[in-house]
Amino acid sequence: MSASARASASPDTTALSEQIAAISRAARAAAHALAFAPSDQKNAALREMAASLHAARRTILAANAADVAAAKRDGLAEPLIDRLTLTEPRLTEMVRSIEAVIELPDPVGETVRSWRRPNGLEIRKVRVPLGVIGIIYESRPNVTSECASLCLKSGNAVILRGGAESFRSNQAIGAAIAQAIAAAGLPSAAVSLIPTADRAGMELMLQRHEEIDVIIPRGGEGLIRMIAERSRIPVIKHAKGVCHVYVDAAADPDMAQAIALNAKCQRPATCNAMETLLVHERIAPTFLPSTIEQLRHAGVEVRGDERARAIVPGIAPASEADWSTEYLALILSVKVVPSLDAAIEHIRRYGSAHSDAIVTKDDSAAQRFLREVDSAAVYVNASTRFTDGFQFGLGAEIGISTDRLHARGPMGLEELTTYKYVVLGNGQIRE
Amino acid sequence: MSASARASASPDTTALSEQIAAISRAARAAAHALAFAPSDQKNAALREMAASLHAARRTILAANAADVAAAKRDGLAEPLIDRLTLTEPRLTEMVRSIEAVIELPDPVGETVRSWRRPNGLEIRKVRVPLGVIGIIYESRPNVTSECASLCLKSGNAVILRGGAESFRSNQAIGAAIAQAIAAAGLPSAAVSLIPTADRAGMELMLQRHEEIDVIIPRGGEGLIRMIAERSRIPVIKHAKGVCHVYVDAAADPDMAQAIALNAKCQRPATCNAMETLLVHERIAPTFLPSTIEQLRHAGVEVRGDERARAIVPGIAPASEADWSTEYLALILSVKVVPSLDAAIEHIRRYGSAHSDAIVTKDDSAAQRFLREVDSAAVYVNASTRFTDGFQFGLGAEIGISTDRLHARGPMGLEELTTYKYVVLGNGQIRE
Repeated sequence: MSASARASASPDTTALSEQIAAISRAARAAAHALAFAPSDQKNAALREMAASLHAARRTILAANAADVAAAKRDGLAEPLIDRLTLTEPRLTEMVRSIEAVIELPDPVGETVRSWRRPNGLEIRKVRVPLGVIGIIYESRPNVTSECASLCLKSGNAVILRGGAESFRSNQAIGAAIAQAIAAAGLPSAAVSLIPTADRAGMELMLQRHEEIDVIIPRGGEGLIRMIAERSRIPVIKHAKGVCHVYVDAAADPDMAQAIALNAKCQRPATCNAMETLLVHERIAPTFLPSTIEQLRHAGVEVRGDERARAIVPGIAPASEADWSTEYLALILSVKVVPSLDAAIEHIRRYGSAHSDAIVTKDDSAAQRFLREVDSAAVYVNASTRFTDGFQFGLGAEIGISTDRLHARGPMGLEELTTYKYVVLGNGQIRE
Repeated sequence: MSASARASASPDTTALSEQIAAISRAARAAAHALAFAPSDQKNAALREMAASLHAARRTILAANAADVAAAKRDGLAEPLIDRLTLTEPRLTEMVRSIEAVIELPDPVGETVRSWRRPNGLEIRKVRVPLGVIGIIYESRPNVTSECASLCLKSGNAVILRGGAESFRSNQAIGAAIAQAIAAAGLPSAAVSLIPTADRAGMELMLQRHEEIDVIIPRGGEGLIRMIAERSRIPVIKHAKGVCHVYVDAAADPDMAQAIALNAKCQRPATCNAMETLLVHERIAPTFLPSTIEQLRHAGVEVRGDERARAIVPGIAPASEADWSTEYLALILSVKVVPSLDAAIEHIRRYGSAHSDAIVTKDDSAAQRFLREVDSAAVYVNASTRFTDGFQFGLGAEIGISTDRLHARGPMGLEELTTYKYVVLGNGQIRE
């Protein structure tokens, strides 16, 4: 966080507390109105949002330039500055992703299931919005408009708390969004931002359990642990991905190599990229040398266990910590395992239950892997990089849940809803 | 809690902490085995459980008699002693409800949905167990076997923490269950009990977030608030039901009277019983006198707002606190409202979003009520008493969730599962 952002964001705590309370109550009131807003009106608001962001692009880019300048002054790492930076093409991308949300079906009001009881009662399980969603995220300012559009489409009010380093960008984007929502005749409190980059704002937000129904944190381990510890509100964690590709004894070596390269290198900074390659000992001597050569050729730093290092000279040793590290970079840990069981055991012990793949032609090995590896997504003969709402054909997502309750894996519009039972009778009473 | 239970249940805290940790780790290990146990084996274990409870009935009844004697010594209220007391018929009922769970379909492994992507990837959304479930409840010892059977059937390990007053009964039931599970070749740690009635045991349990996936509390407001505040583990609350019947201006008065009587009197101690009757001012003068007479005839103590008291003399005044009170008894608060809007607003303000009904012949009033009252179950022309897994045709339930995330309303076998994505490829990589 820049010194100036910190200074402008430290008002008296009581005033801040009242401000966060007012924002939360306004969001709760907005949620009531949004819950019954027809799809047409929500889509109209989304179109206004897209137009408003386009119209405000100069203001947004100027705010972002100030954020980037402050980040550089503060010595932020280059990849973080890249994530923070908005450009005309990235703004166009933001506008386009709102347009994509307009095209998605509205989940609210959908009857998931209906049936009739012997006493004549008709029961319908109907999707309704969750209510008020709090999203806490880091760095990328485009997350602000993505989350706002998905929450609005699913009839939820949202309170956003972005990273301190993108505070000015988020405020500019938020102002454009609020204006658009009001223009469409919906309450502008449907989307609000925590008005300070101070951590105090987030802590106060986590206490508003009377108004906020769920907190979705997206970010680093430290942030997520802190939120899980302090939140009075239920949390759906979007935590790390320590993803594995296991190359079975019965793997097609060419396919395994292509999958390993893709899972590691195609976009290493994503949570569904591979961090550890497990190789069955029977295939390792023939598979590892050329695969590691290819990986190195692609710029990957390889760290291995003793057996991998015995097969391919010059690999750095992997430490115990490596096996549970999400590198998010061109670094890979490699381990030779004696069996499928050992691979499954390794994944259970060190993995984060995000996305894990087996490459094999052996159907029974594949079935065991699919059954016994309990991750949000388990793959046979495909890259882990497909764990993504668009790739799954589910549309845009708030993120990838690494939790087990309510939503697991890609969390899209449907996962932003809950349900209620609608029961139609003609005088039924219970005997 | 009886003095003797308290004395026997206060070991040194470090030892207790280690004991709870060991129980939690054993449950986690058991959950891995249970997750892949075939339905046949789980059903065999359930049959063993039923037989074992039957065989141990003398031991269980003796333990229960000791609990009841202690409760009487401690001056526990009569309804609580009734809930605590086991009898031969109640034990038979416990055995029967396990047999009913055997008959229910196993949700684990079910493919909820499957589809194929243009690149040939086949994606299946498959039900898997939640993992380790912690259940905290009060009073009734039959909850122990009900929860154990539902968790086992859905492939989950469970850690149970019952009420202090039923500690001996629960231990006896738990011992019979553990023996049965082991006899069926499953890990007996699939079902375990917190070995102390002390609150310290529960507090330590709420810290085991590495092993326990979800806490389900069933009980009074104080217990649930405490758990929501202290738990490091996600909580699905089974809290109070402040349920309403709203008699619209266009109600059939006979139907409305029958529904009001049923919702209040058929079993007043349940969470889906009506606590507040709202009556439209146009129908109140003709509807209220005979309805309140009938309610009083059924032993109901009626408390009313000023307008109700003006219509029916002799009604005690309702205080502000009455409107949000779950009586769980033959007490009813009555309010005359000027409009449907006022009824909806009252329910939103004072209700607990459990079960609420409108009685009306006016379809547009019914539709507005169904849409705008955001409760787990909303009814037209039927008693709120139907909010129940069996009555909905969903089978036995752990309880009625009053939360919005993951499970809402009756929480049965399906709601005790989550899902994972199984992705089948033939070498797909991401472009």
